[in-house]
Amino acid sequence: MNLFADIPVANFEELHETLHSHGKCRIERIVSCGQASPPGFWYDQAEEEWVVVLQGAARLMCDDRMVDLKPGDFLHIPAHQRHRVEWTTPDEPTIWLAVFYG
Amino acid sequence: MNLFADIPVANFEELHETLHSHGKCRIERIVSCGQASPPGFWYDQAEEEWVVVLQGAARLMCDDRMVDLKPGDFLHIPAHQRHRVEWTTPDEPTIWLAVFYG
Repeated sequence: MNLFADIPVANFEELHETLHSHGKCRIERIVSCGQASPPGFWYDQAEEEWVVVLQGAARLMCDDRMVDLKPGDFLHIPAHQRHRVEWTTPDEPTIWLAVFYG
Repeated sequence: MNLFADIPVANFEELHETLHSHGKCRIERIVSCGQASPPGFWYDQAEEEWVVVLQGAARLMCDDRMVDLKPGDFLHIPAHQRHRVEWTTPDEPTIWLAVFYG
């Protein structure tokens, strides 16, 4: 498998794929295409997360902070920091690499 | 900082930068430009490593297995697996993202 391969062309459900899982580390590829978190939904996860956008673009809310991510931009989301996806590019797949640990 | 920003143009020393370090997880960006491991040198590290090439290309040896990596190709290098970099593209920076964990 390759990070940039097997990207659907359009109008697809958001993809979550585990690329690696070992001990207390899990690495996922997420591919979005216009998806956002449902209204009022917030992630509140027990794991630490480090995430980078590799293609496309996205806007996150982390507590009350808005974070815009373009390719190469990365972010640490501490465990239990409430966050949600406000927006991803509707016209191009957004490829995220997310590292969950600890 | 951005994963794809501040890449030297040519003839530079290999760059190792820690993008994130927290608990038992460390994430590094490595930028190579033709560098390889010195003859006879092998990495033998206590941490698990997951590495992906995002730009450029590289050839690793992992024990006696040769692994060619192009953009998007990734690899798990278990703790204490002997490995070395045989080759990286001399004409284009190779950008690696490496996740080390405990």
